[in-house]
Parts: sequence; structure tokens; C-alpha cells
Amino acid sequence: MWKPDRSVKKPIYQQIADYIERRITFGEFPPGSSLPSERKLADSLGVNRSTVILAYEELRASGIIESAKGSGTRVTRHKWGITPKQTPNWKTYVEGGTFLPNLPFIRRIREELRIAPGAIDFASGELSTDLFPNDIIRELLQTKSFQEDLGYDDPQGYSPLRETLVRFLETQLHIQSTESSILITSGSQQSLYLITQCLLSPGDAVAIEDPSYCYSLPMFQSAGLRLFRLPVDDEGMNPDDIIALHRQHRIRMLFLNPNFQNPTGSVLSLERKTRLLSIASELGIPIVEDDPFTLTSFEGTPPPTLKSLDKTGNVLYIGSLSKIAASGLRIGWLIAPQAVVSRLTDARQQMDFGLSRIPQWVANHFIAGGHFENQIHLLRKSLKLKRDSLMSGLHDIMGDSVSFMEPQGGLNIWCKFNREVDDFKLLDEAIKRGVLFVPGSVYGSDQGHMRVSFARPRQDEIRQGLAQLYEALQEHK
Amino acid sequence: MWKPDRSVKKPIYQQIADYIERRITFGEFPPGSSLPSERKLADSLGVNRSTVILAYEELRASGIIESAKGSGTRVTRHKWGITPKQTPNWKTYVEGGTFLPNLPFIRRIREELRIAPGAIDFASGELSTDLFPNDIIRELLQTKSFQEDLGYDDPQGYSPLRETLVRFLETQLHIQSTESSILITSGSQQSLYLITQCLLSPGDAVAIEDPSYCYSLPMFQSAGLRLFRLPVDDEGMNPDDIIALHRQHRIRMLFLNPNFQNPTGSVLSLERKTRLLSIASELGIPIVEDDPFTLTSFEGTPPPTLKSLDKTGNVLYIGSLSKIAASGLRIGWLIAPQAVVSRLTDARQQMDFGLSRIPQWVANHFIAGGHFENQIHLLRKSLKLKRDSLMSGLHDIMGDSVSFMEPQGGLNIWCKFNREVDDFKLLDEAIKRGVLFVPGSVYGSDQGHMRVSFARPRQDEIRQGLAQLYEALQEHK
Repeated sequence: MWKPDRSVKKPIYQQIADYIERRITFGEFPPGSSLPSERKLADSLGVNRSTVILAYEELRASGIIESAKGSGTRVTRHKWGITPKQTPNWKTYVEGGTFLPNLPFIRRIREELRIAPGAIDFASGELSTDLFPNDIIRELLQTKSFQEDLGYDDPQGYSPLRETLVRFLETQLHIQSTESSILITSGSQQSLYLITQCLLSPGDAVAIEDPSYCYSLPMFQSAGLRLFRLPVDDEGMNPDDIIALHRQHRIRMLFLNPNFQNPTGSVLSLERKTRLLSIASELGIPIVEDDPFTLTSFEGTPPPTLKSLDKTGNVLYIGSLSKIAASGLRIGWLIAPQAVVSRLTDARQQMDFGLSRIPQWVANHFIAGGHFENQIHLLRKSLKLKRDSLMSGLHDIMGDSVSFMEPQGGLNIWCKFNREVDDFKLLDEAIKRGVLFVPGSVYGSDQGHMRVSFARPRQDEIRQGLAQLYEALQEHK
Repeated sequence: MWKPDRSVKKPIYQQIADYIERRITFGEFPPGSSLPSERKLADSLGVNRSTVILAYEELRASGIIESAKGSGTRVTRHKWGITPKQTPNWKTYVEGGTFLPNLPFIRRIREELRIAPGAIDFASGELSTDLFPNDIIRELLQTKSFQEDLGYDDPQGYSPLRETLVRFLETQLHIQSTESSILITSGSQQSLYLITQCLLSPGDAVAIEDPSYCYSLPMFQSAGLRLFRLPVDDEGMNPDDIIALHRQHRIRMLFLNPNFQNPTGSVLSLERKTRLLSIASELGIPIVEDDPFTLTSFEGTPPPTLKSLDKTGNVLYIGSLSKIAASGLRIGWLIAPQAVVSRLTDARQQMDFGLSRIPQWVANHFIAGGHFENQIHLLRKSLKLKRDSLMSGLHDIMGDSVSFMEPQGGLNIWCKFNREVDDFKLLDEAIKRGVLFVPGSVYGSDQGHMRVSFARPRQDEIRQGLAQLYEALQEHK
């Protein structure tokens, strides 16, 4: 990103004014459009607010921009010799569209991470950089010769990777599949998106866990779906709840994250899994099993997936490398009946014409080359250590303020505040103190919860972050 | 893909029966679902139809599948001890969804390319493998050390690539931009998709060229847009047509491919470009400039893009490496006002969580390392030779049957048949003879046209392909 150059003679404010003028001239800020607030621009350029004020002053003086009380700073129109009617009203365009923007909380957190990369990040459900197999990937790229075709890939995904995944899923998770039943996607996110766009119609009723990561995804609302909730306890959701919901609303699909559920960390018990499969099959309702975490299982044999227990092809299974190797590979997979795979493959072609073969080729070498076992072994050990640090930190620092369950896998601890808390205010106070978490309401739960991820912050940041969080909580009283 | 193993003792039909049974057991073909037709399965496995008939016979005998006259072969239900009610009716799911499937013609052509990879391909608008910079990419991967973070990328795309593109676009196309006005996308396709999903609402009127590549994209219909046509002649569309259309329908956006238009190859004249920009600005209508081909310009200076002439930020510019370097990199870009870039970036995160950094890092080294100039030089030379071969072939072989204009860039020749032709029947006859093209009606034109791409077939295939095509045309009388 452009930053002012402190080594040259031209004053910083002047550099900024020139930079903004250039962006205006290039059409990045068309006549009539809003400029970033002084604070925001100052933060993103790493300068004092007063410098930005000077820069804006300069541009105002030359008639390029104008400010009005309450409506911020805008690019003037008259300067360009055109009337307000003569440019598109971009505001109405960006506020239109059937696809809804992300939740304000999510956008706020993302923006904060962008402008304050030093914040202690309990919000991102992502591994820290040191947990990625960086060295292995670098070595793969250099030692394996890329001999693949650089044309469009097979629309269902790179065939050798799908073959490798068949063996991987069988060995690691006892899931049986063939390469023709697998669609390679840009992470789990794309699988979920394709399902909501292609298999469900506006007005369809679907059931999700409460709380649920799905609740944080506007894609469900964008697709016009009606969401019904299946409350989660220590053993996951209760399959019998589906019966009444279905009788009343004709549930068309279930979206579940049975193992180390996001955000609660709970595992659907084997008994409930069996019962769930039987009820869903009885009622003819497909289950989407979102399974990012099973292989993170900190100790012993990971819990079985629904897919491995499914006898009737009711389960659409979604997995990915994002939480167990590296999110930046953007490699996920969907296992589904042939008719579903064909439909989704066709739609994905229309949306983005498929994935680049290069990261798929990397993922294939990574898994087929036997690197995964080592990666997952180290990852489990590190995640367990981080979970332990977070738990003892929560205990020591937050004390009676929060209660939580010990997760046996995944990346999150789900905390309940032992008194009333206003999500918005608490996040605000936390941001002021340089620490981030995700408020519980993002996942559709009542206020008074937070999701604290232990995967992203470094070990040595965890206690400091919690202290800042505790301060925020105290302030918020 | 799985193929029967001819080196083992087990008979081929038995291997196929076992393979199908395995797929049924794994849920790939759930109880009640349709199996591929005998012909289709035989084609895709590379065996005789009689072998598949034997395999299906075997499965029918064991009660796993059943056939009914006229409704093909299905997986039986009773075998699995469940009643029809007890599994999801996948057919209703895959036929639902707001996102529409590809046009039957397109699916037919894709399927044919998949099962008969030896066909001579005048249909794909893609470069042949030898035109990709294969050696350079392979060398880049091995010699440059990948030191990038393997986490989620910047939602707007890899920052060094955006900075490189600013210089690239300035040097190659006189387009001025800053890295903050660029969104890296999975090819042009994703830019178009994001625009239709996020900036337009169902019922909005948009205008496209007639004929137009856009017409072949069901995403416009999926988004509920009303499409109006701007007929194209030798100098492109006529800007004055917009005025009447707008008066009647309130046009919200224009989707145009001004240089070497797909499918006609025509170039919007400079005079019309200027007039277009003035009318669009006057009426406040944004223009989406889809620009995959400008840099393929066979001789002399490429024609100017609209974006380089745009003074009011009216133009959303879409480019990509697909047609000028390699489609399999899946690297495209959108240049747009800040408000639009933010909106689309947010939506893309929800759809697929952004692109992998690896191909972006490759693309950056490819462009910044000065490899592009050499690539485009060789590409122009090869494309011109192929165009010449196709033109002389059309002249010698098809003679008076077709007329066409000589394209000065791009990948296609747009042919008009000099008599009535039934698109569907002609394609059918062509497929029988192992040659593929895209019928004109796919692009919204009247019957009696075809798009013949010269980029994909090898030089030595072109005349043979045309002979087969001519045979098909004769047969179709």
C-alpha cells in the first residue's frame, strides 16, 4: 500500500494531498463520492490526524474536495464541469444487489485488523503463521517440477488431488469416496456458498445449530433462506428437535458442524449422531456436514464424522486444509452424490471458472508426499498448548467473570459472561485496548457470550491479551 | 479418472460392475438416483457399449439397480430396506436454487470435450497449450523462493501484484490507477459475477452488445436482470442506441467488450468510444468494460480502451491474464471506484474467502520480471498465423457457404452462413465428425452464425477440422 515517503523533501501532508488528487483524477473517487474520514486515513497511512487535516485543507483550497458538517468530505462536482446528474450514483449501486454485505461486527473487526495489525487477535479463526507448513510448501515449489497444463483445470478440480483425497479421507477419517464424487473448492466457504445458491430456493427453511458459525454468514440471508435453530448443549444439538421443526416448517436442509463445533467446541455424541442420521433419513432431509476441525483432535482417536456413519448418501460432506494446514492454499472439498456434484461444478464454472491448478498441485504433493502426518502431529501439540494457556489465563485473569467448557479440538473457546454485557460496547473497549474477539451475537446467541480463538495469537501474547480484555470488561461495567 | 485395468484377469465388465457398486455404496448414487446412460458411461470409460450393458446386467441381476423403459437405469430402493420417502429427493434439490445452470449448448460442448478429448476444438475460447508461458512459469516456481505468508490473503488481492499491475496497465494500456483501486479476481468471470450479484438488483435493465458473450452467461438471468440489446456492426455498437433504450427502460448498466469483441471481433471506433463515454456520463450510466483481448492486437498499436479515455470514473474495467498468458493462473483484475471495490471485496470474501496467494505470487513475478513482453510478442505472431490459416481454410474449403470479417485481434472469427442453418442439427453433425464450434444463438444472435476460435486447435488441425465442419454442413442440408 502507498505510504508517504519520509526520506524526500516534499512535506508529508503535500504528498498525501497529491496522492488523493491522483486517486480522484483516476476515477477511484469519482465526483460526488465520499473520501475516507480523517481518522481512518491517518490510521491507514500511519500519520497523525493533523497531517491529514492539512492535506484535506490543501485540496479544499484548490476546490477539488468539499466538506459539509455531518456528511464528511466529498469530491466536488463543479470542478469537473459536470452536474450531479452526469455521473452514476455509486451509492445506490453499492447499496443494491441481492448479495448482502458482511455483518457490521465482522467488517469492524476486519477493518481493525487491517489498520492495526499489531492488535492481539482472538477473533480470527485462523492458525498463526508459525503453524503453517511454510518450509514444506517452499521446498515443494522448488524441488517438484511443475509439468501441468496451464489451461483451465478440470471443472471438478485437479484429478490427481481428488485421487489423493480419496485415500486421505479413507485413511484419516474412514470416509469412503471415489474421485468422481469429490469437488475441489476454494475452502469450505465456497462449498457452503454453492449449496445455498444451487440447491435451495428463496423461502426454503433450513436448520442450523444455535449458536452457529452459519449464522454469521449473510449468504444464507442473501439466498432468502429461513433459518431455524437447533440449540447446542455439551453433546451438540438434539436430533429430536428436528422432528418438531420439520412438522412445522418443512425443513429442507440441515447445516451442522458436529465435531468441535464452531463456536462452542462441543462434539455431537455418537449416540446423537446415529439418531440424527436415522431421523434425517426417515424425513428425507439432507445434512450438510461442515467439518473443518475433526483432525485437530488434541488427543486420541478423533470422533467419527457423520459421513463415515452415513449409509444412505444423505450427508454432503465439506472439508478443507484451511484449519489443519494453511488457509492460504484455499483448498477445500465437497463429497456429494453425483447429481449434486454436477450441478455445483457447473455453477462454479460460471462464478469463477474454477481454481488455479498451481495450489491444487501443491496440496496434492503435500498430502501424497506424506507431509500431512507430521504437520497434524505438530499442529495438535501446539494447539493443545495454546488452548491450555488460554484456559489457565482465563482462569487466572478473568476469574469468576466468565465460564467455559474445555474444548478437545478446534480453535475456539466459547465463553459465557457471568453478568450482563453489551457486545458492541465491550468490543469497542477491547479495540481501544488493542485486543480483538468475536461477540457471541455474531453466532446468533443471546448477548453475553464471546468466542475467543487461541490459534492466531502467539503463545506469549495470550496472557497480555486477556489482561487487556479484562480491563475492557471492567471499563464496560 | 477411474478406468478399467486391462492388465488384470478380472473381466472388464465385472470391474465396471464392481466400480459402480462401490460408488452406489459410498452414496455417490443414492437409492432412487439415475445412473449414466450406457452410451455415456461407455464413452467416458473408453469401452464398448456392450461391455457396459453386461455390467449393468450384472448389477440388475443382484437387485442393486433397475431399469424401466424410457426412464433409464436407477439405483433400487428396496434393496436398501428403505422406502422412497426415506431419502432426499435429490432431483428436486438440483433443479432448485436461484443460480441457473449453463445453457444446454455449452454443457453439450463441454461434455463432448471431456469424453472425446481428441476432437478438433474450434469451440473453446482458450489458447492452445503451446501458447502458454509454460517454461517461464516452471522456472519461476523453481528459482524464486516463496517466502509469503500462507494465511488468508489481503481480501483485495496480493498487494505486490496490485502494485505491479498499476505499472503494467500504465505502460501497456495507458490506464491510470492505484493499487487501492484494483481487485484481483479469479479471471474476468469472477468480476462479472460480482458485479451482477452486488451492484444490480432483480428487475434492473442492463444493455449488452448483440451478439455478445454476456448472452451466453446465465448469471445475468440468475440475477434477475432484464437484458436489452445494442446491435454490433463493423465498428461495434452504436452509442446513440443507448439513448432510446434508456428512455424506455432506464438502463442501469452497460456491459461492453469494445476491443476485438467476443464473438464478432469488431473494434469500437475511436469516434464511437468518445461518443459512448459522453452519452453514458450524460445519462449517469456506468459502463463495464470487459477487456480480455486488447493486448492480442496482431499488428501496430492496440486500440485504446474506454478506461484510458474515461475522465469521470464511469468505467469499471475488467482485464485478465487468461487470453494473453495462461487461463489456468486464474488471475484477473477489476479497476473501479473505491466504493465499488470495497463492496465487491466484502462479497467475494463471503463466496470463497479470496484467492490463493501462490498463483498471484507467480503472476507477479511473471509480469514484474519482464517476461510479459516476450510472451505477448510470440503470442501475437502465433495468433496471427492461426487466424490466417483459419481464414484461408474457410475460403478454400467452405467457399461461398460462409462470409466473415477479418479480425485484427482476439481469438475468434464470426461466420455467417449464406443459407438457413439449424444450429442444433449442425452441431450434432459436427460432433459426429469429431469437430466442435459454438453456434451463434449462444451469443443471442439469430440462427445462421457460428463462432470459430482459432486459438485452441493446432495449426495442422485447422484445415482438417474445417473439412469435417464442411462435411457436417453438407450433411445437414
